[in-house]
Amino acid sequence: MDNKVTVSRKAHFNAAHRLFKPEWSDEKNLEVFGKCSNPKYHGHNYDLVVSVTGTVDSETGFVLNLKKLKDIIYREIEEAFDHKNLNLETEEFKSLNPTTENIAIVIYNRLRPHIKADQELEIILYETERNFVKYSG
Amino acid sequence: MDNKVTVSRKAHFNAAHRLFKPEWSDEKNLEVFGKCSNPKYHGHNYDLVVSVTGTVDSETGFVLNLKKLKDIIYREIEEAFDHKNLNLETEEFKSLNPTTENIAIVIYNRLRPHIKADQELEIILYETERNFVKYSG
Amino acid sequence: MDNKVTVSRKAHFNAAHRLFKPEWSDEKNLEVFGKCSNPKYHGHNYDLVVSVTGTVDSETGFVLNLKKLKDIIYREIEEAFDHKNLNLETEEFKSLNPTTENIAIVIYNRLRPHIKADQELEIILYETERNFVKYSG
Amino acid sequence: MDNKVTVSRKAHFNAAHRLFKPEWSDEKNLEVFGKCSNPKYHGHNYDLVVSVTGTVDSETGFVLNLKKLKDIIYREIEEAFDHKNLNLETEEFKSLNPTTENIAIVIYNRLRPHIKADQELEIILYETERNFVKYSG
Amino acid sequence: MDNKVTVSRKAHFNAAHRLFKPEWSDEKNLEVFGKCSNPKYHGHNYDLVVSVTGTVDSETGFVLNLKKLKDIIYREIEEAFDHKNLNLETEEFKSLNPTTENIAIVIYNRLRPHIKADQELEIILYETERNFVKYSG
Amino acid sequence: MDNKVTVSRKAHFNAAHRLFKPEWSDEKNLEVFGKCSNPKYHGHNYDLVVSVTGTVDSETGFVLNLKKLKDIIYREIEEAFDHKNLNLETEEFKSLNPTTENIAIVIYNRLRPHIKADQELEIILYETERNFVKYSG
Repeated sequence: MDNKVTVSRKAHFNAAHRLFKPEWSDEKNLEVFGKCSNPKYHGHNYDLVVSVTGTVDSETGFVLNLKKLKDIIYREIEEAFDHKNLNLETEEFKSLNPTTENIAIVIYNRLRPHIKADQELEIILYETERNFVKYSG
Repeated sequence: MDNKVTVSRKAHFNAAHRLFKPEWSDEKNLEVFGKCSNPKYHGHNYDLVVSVTGTVDSETGFVLNLKKLKDIIYREIEEAFDHKNLNLETEEFKSLNPTTENIAIVIYNRLRPHIKADQELEIILYETERNFVKYSG
Repeated sequence: MDNKVTVSRKAHFNAAHRLFKPEWSDEKNLEVFGKCSNPKYHGHNYDLVVSVTGTVDSETGFVLNLKKLKDIIYREIEEAFDHKNLNLETEEFKSLNPTTENIAIVIYNRLRPHIKADQELEIILYETERNFVKYSG
Repeated sequence: MDNKVTVSRKAHFNAAHRLFKPEWSDEKNLEVFGKCSNPKYHGHNYDLVVSVTGTVDSETGFVLNLKKLKDIIYREIEEAFDHKNLNLETEEFKSLNPTTENIAIVIYNRLRPHIKADQELEIILYETERNFVKYSG
Repeated sequence: MDNKVTVSRKAHFNAAHRLFKPEWSDEKNLEVFGKCSNPKYHGHNYDLVVSVTGTVDSETGFVLNLKKLKDIIYREIEEAFDHKNLNLETEEFKSLNPTTENIAIVIYNRLRPHIKADQELEIILYETERNFVKYSG
Repeated sequence: MDNKVTVSRKAHFNAAHRLFKPEWSDEKNLEVFGKCSNPKYHGHNYDLVVSVTGTVDSETGFVLNLKKLKDIIYREIEEAFDHKNLNLETEEFKSLNPTTENIAIVIYNRLRPHIKADQELEIILYETERNFVKYSG
C-alpha cells in the first residue's frame, strides 16, 4: 500500500470545430470525416475530467488543493478554448486535426508542466455523452 | 379526468452558432452578447425534448407512435441542424438571432404542422446542462 | 399566492413486458408494435417520479412526509411491479396493453387513494432515458 | 400563441442543516423528523433550477440575459447559503424549519424582487437526486 | 510516453432475462438468485461502454473511426440483444447464466475479433445505474 | 486472459463536515481550507462507488453476490456516516481531517476486511459532481 489517491476535477468548454487536414483535398476530408468535416463548422459542449494521482499530504489531507487545480484548468484550458473556434483560434489546431484524441493530448500537454513531476496526470474528454477519450501521457 | 397523457421523446444535435444581429455593429453585438458573439463561432451539443399531449388511443394504448415522432424529429430537426452552422446554413437564422429562445420557437414551428391539431406540443431545448428553455406556442 | 408546493420522489423498478393486444393476431401486433411486441418479452429499468402538490403544513414545514410517500410507492408500486413480467404477473395488464402511457395511468390509479383529496398527484414514468410520459388524472 | 418562453438556469450550493422546530422538544423533533433532526447536523449538495417565463425581446432574442440571472442567483442565493449552516447562519431559518419546501419558498422570495413584475418565477430545488420540490408563488 | 489513447463509445439495449442455472432445481435458483430468478423474467435497459486503446493514427488523428465502432456494436451486440429475451433468444445464454459478469464477457468475446490485435478492448456494462461490471479479457 | 471482472455498486450518504486540523489555529485552518473550514459546518450528498475485482465463480456467474456487497456497504458505511456530522460523530474523523481523500481511505479500510483476500477493492467517492477521488489501497 503506497497511499496513492487520484483526485479528479470536472470542467467544460463550448467550442466550434471541424475535422480537417489542410494537406488533403476537400473531397478527401469529406470522404474520411463525413459531416464532421463541414467547412462551415459545427460544435460541442466538451466535458473535461482532469485527474491527478499522488500521495496524500499528511499536513493538509490533500493530494493537491482542488482550488488550485480549478484555477490551472481555467487559465490553461477554459480561457484558451471556451467559446472559440478550435481550428481558427488556437495555435495547436491550426496545423493539427482537432479530433477528440488530439484535443485530449493537447490538454494533457498544456497541463503537465503545472502538475508536480512525481504526480500522474490523466485527461478524459467527452465530445458528446456517447463519445469520449482518455489519455495519460 | 380527461385521460390526457404527455408523451416525450429526447433527441440531440451538435451545431455551431454565434449570437449576432446583422443590423447591429460588431461592437454592439459584442457588448450585448459577449463571447457568445465570437465572429468565428462556437458550438454546443443541443439536447431536445419534444412533448406531445393528447388522449390515449384505446386501440393502441398510445398518444402517438413514438417511432413516428422520432422519425419526424429526425427529418425536420436533426437533418436540418445537426453538424451545421446555424447562422450560415439554416434559412431561419440567416436573419434571426439564434438564441436558445429563438431556436426553440423555430423547432416548435417546424414540428407543429406534423402534430395533430387537437394535440399540444411543447419544446424543451438545452443549450448546456445549465441553460435551457421551454416553449409551447 | 396560495403557498402551494409540489414535492417529488423518485423510485424505480425493473420489469419485463411486451406490447400486445390479446384480441389482435400476432401479425397485427407485430405490424403495429414492431420489436416491442416480441412474444418472448424484453424489459426495462423504469424510472418513476411521483409528485404531490398541496399547501405546506405550518407545523412541520412539509406538504407531506416524504418517508410516508416512499413507503406508499414501495408497497403499491415496487412490490407489485419490480422484477415482474407486467403482462403475466399484474392484474391490470392481463387485459390492458402495457404501453408507457397505460403503465403511468395504472400507477396513478394505484396511488391516488393514498393521497389526500385536496392534493394533486402527477406521475412521470421513464421507459428509457429517451422515452417518457406524464399523467395527472 | 403569446410567444411566452421559459428560460431556466441551474445553480447549486452545499450546506449543513437539521430539521428542527425550536418550539418543540428534542423528543418531538426526533419523532417527527427522524435522523434528519440529528442535533449535530447533516448536509446536502442542493441543486437549484431557477426559471423565468416572459415574452421574448425582439431586439435581443432573450427573455432575459442569462448572465444577469446567473449573477442574481450568485449574489442572492449562493453567497447566502453556500458552505453555510442554514439553521445557524441564515436569518430566515433561525426561526423557520429548513425543509426543502421552506428553502424553496425562501429562495423564491429572495429572487422575486429582482425579476420583472410581468415575468413569472419558478423554483425547483433538489435536496437529493430523489427528493425535490417546486414552487412558483 | 507511448501516445496511447483510449476511445470510448456508449450504446444500449433493452432485454428480458432471469438468473437461472438449468442444472439447478427451481428452489436452488430462487435461493441463490432471489427475485432475479423470477421464472416469468424481468428486464433492464442495459448501458454499454466499449473502449478501445491504441496509438493515434498520425494521418487521421483517430485511434479508430468511431463511426465504424458504432456499426460493429450495432451489428454484433444491439441486433443480437436488443428487445430480446437473453435466456431464450441468444445462443450463448441458453446454457450460460446471464449475470452482468457473463453478459460483459460474452460482449467482449463478440467484439474482440473485430478490433485490431494490437489494440486493447474493455467492456463496461451497466445493468442498472447502481450495478455495473468491467471486463477487459 | 485471467477472466477477472470488476463489479461495482453505487451507494450514497448525506453528511455534514468541515475541513479542520485541531492542531492548527482557526486562522490557519481558514487560510488553507477557505470556506470549507466554516466552524458551523456545511454538508454534501456523497456518492460512493465500491468496486471489487476477482474471478467469476463458475457456479453462480458472480464475482460476488451484489446483494451481500450492498449489505456490507449499508452496515459499514451508510449506518456510520449517513445523516451524521463526520467531525463530531465518527471515530476516525475526530483526529483526522475529513478531506475527500481521507474519507475514501477510511471507507476502504472499513470495507477491506469484508472482501476476500484475493479480490481487489477500489473506492470512488464524489464530494460533488465535479470533485471526486479514487483509492485502491
